[in-house]
Amino acid sequence: MVLDKRLGLSETRDLLELASAYIDSIKLTFGTSALYPKAVLREKIKLIRSYGVDVYPGGTLFEIALWQDRLEPFFQCAAELGFTGIEISDGTLTISPKDRRRAIQRAKAHGFKVVTEVGKKIGPPLPVLRMQQMIADDLEAGADKVIIEGRESGKGVGIFDENGNIKTAEMEALVHDLPDFERVLVWEAPLKNQQVSLIKRFGPNVNLGNIAPEEVLALAALRCGLRGDTFGFC
Amino acid sequence: MVLDKRLGLSETRDLLELASAYIDSIKLTFGTSALYPKAVLREKIKLIRSYGVDVYPGGTLFEIALWQDRLEPFFQCAAELGFTGIEISDGTLTISPKDRRRAIQRAKAHGFKVVTEVGKKIGPPLPVLRMQQMIADDLEAGADKVIIEGRESGKGVGIFDENGNIKTAEMEALVHDLPDFERVLVWEAPLKNQQVSLIKRFGPNVNLGNIAPEEVLALAALRCGLRGDTFGFC
Amino acid sequence: MVLDKRLGLSETRDLLELASAYIDSIKLTFGTSALYPKAVLREKIKLIRSYGVDVYPGGTLFEIALWQDRLEPFFQCAAELGFTGIEISDGTLTISPKDRRRAIQRAKAHGFKVVTEVGKKIGPPLPVLRMQQMIADDLEAGADKVIIEGRESGKGVGIFDENGNIKTAEMEALVHDLPDFERVLVWEAPLKNQQVSLIKRFGPNVNLGNIAPEEVLALAALRCGLRGDTFGFC
Repeated sequence: MVLDKRLGLSETRDLLELASAYIDSIKLTFGTSALYPKAVLREKIKLIRSYGVDVYPGGTLFEIALWQDRLEPFFQCAAELGFTGIEISDGTLTISPKDRRRAIQRAKAHGFKVVTEVGKKIGPPLPVLRMQQMIADDLEAGADKVIIEGRESGKGVGIFDENGNIKTAEMEALVHDLPDFERVLVWEAPLKNQQVSLIKRFGPNVNLGNIAPEEVLALAALRCGLRGDTFGFC
Repeated sequence: MVLDKRLGLSETRDLLELASAYIDSIKLTFGTSALYPKAVLREKIKLIRSYGVDVYPGGTLFEIALWQDRLEPFFQCAAELGFTGIEISDGTLTISPKDRRRAIQRAKAHGFKVVTEVGKKIGPPLPVLRMQQMIADDLEAGADKVIIEGRESGKGVGIFDENGNIKTAEMEALVHDLPDFERVLVWEAPLKNQQVSLIKRFGPNVNLGNIAPEEVLALAALRCGLRGDTFGFC
Repeated sequence: MVLDKRLGLSETRDLLELASAYIDSIKLTFGTSALYPKAVLREKIKLIRSYGVDVYPGGTLFEIALWQDRLEPFFQCAAELGFTGIEISDGTLTISPKDRRRAIQRAKAHGFKVVTEVGKKIGPPLPVLRMQQMIADDLEAGADKVIIEGRESGKGVGIFDENGNIKTAEMEALVHDLPDFERVLVWEAPLKNQQVSLIKRFGPNVNLGNIAPEEVLALAALRCGLRGDTFGFC
């Protein structure tokens, strides 16, 4: 999942033409998609879909819609614009398990792929047991995948310490006893050392998120062992 | 004010098509505009202006022209190329108050919007009282706005400490007793934490400078409360 | 030498249109070129060559080919795709002096410009005497230039310490007694402070490598004294 906070139409075309084979989805992150001229947004979404890539608005937009009690209009608008997926997050808001479950189900009813996100953008990290419960609940409610929050920075959040290094014990605890975790978890991992570690731990096909557009091809090279850091590994 | 050190024609078009509503001006920073092929420069300036956005050469180019005693040819050339604004700075040179005043007046006489810059690129920061005097003098001489130097890095310069955090006392002292400071000051603030702090202190419409092209939409999201960091703030 | 890990066709055209005068070669870094759709790769190489700029695949690709004992097919394929240069490196592998010499000669026989790279991507830096010997051997074997490894990060590698500052003694020792070193050495120097130091030490025409595409024009400004950091220097 690519984190896109800025790509214009030519840049989007450039990225897809070059690297669409290595991208499963693009997230128009935060609330940026609400700031596009509508015609540009429609054309961009159409372009992304023409390459068979999924496209999501940012989780922040979902949180705002929920906060404003405008979830149905949000889903309708997203569908009408052509988005193929929705991210259900509580990075900023506190959302009750019941509301979260309901939101997942409503998004699925609208035909979206649904990814949820586990983790807080600010403040102390969630306890691992709490995260495991949320992952299980989300999947049970119908979520397709669950993202482990890593922010754009990859530092001091989720499984990453203040320097962006992986807290191995937390990471291992998270996947412990989680069936099919390779398929259902997406690790937000914007930094190269994180990508290298996760590829070495979980294999070249591990789901990674918050990948900057300019890193897509470099990450694909890491996965394939076509870069010094993973040479001969894959 | 966007700091542009690299955008080609397609990238410029992409940026404007997507985000011109959130840009008041683009600075072709340092002396980069002197390095463009002339035809590309003309086309780029024309493109920027067609979106109603102002375009400035970098302050360094002004300083070189002054140093070479070639100010009039510089203004004439900038006007002929289509630049709509001039930055008057002394980030590198030492310029007498009289020469600075004269340069502002000459630039205005050529029909340019004039922004001045206060602050040194290297060495100890100017005392606040000195900065206040310069701001008052520049405005009195006809400057439209005054930029507080932050460099491309945003670290160890002006109101920013070595880690890029805002020195609050200095910032507050700067705006103390300055009439209409929301309108006349532009804060160079390339880093997100700086942008968040300035938005929270001065409101969503605070003038910010040295914004990287790839951050324009993300900053607009911050201003609107469409990102976790300022959610529910604006 | 520009390090390109991501440019699509429009972005490549933008870069060349704006700044080809300041670029001698572009490296499609690591193994990224193996991941392009073939038609896009051919068109990109053709585009780069149309501006008179050399184009290299990454050194990692050479190392993989050597490791797989597929050097001749690699050279043939690179030539057929239109690459004009080859980088001979041992950043990841250990290669015997004899194999290295043979690879240089074979690449030359295929008509390529040949740059070799001295330095390890990971682990302790090579002793200076060893590097000097390799440089002499490579040039004697026919290499056109020798790159001093700096990685994409510019930190904790070759002549750079963990913070990306130049280890002056090592740098001076390297060039000591090396005839014509201004012409034959290329310093990978992705960070601005490194570029400034090397320009100040070796002059505005010093060969620099691993330059990010977005820094090409900014670096050209540094070389010409059109930026605060080198103002009045050149």
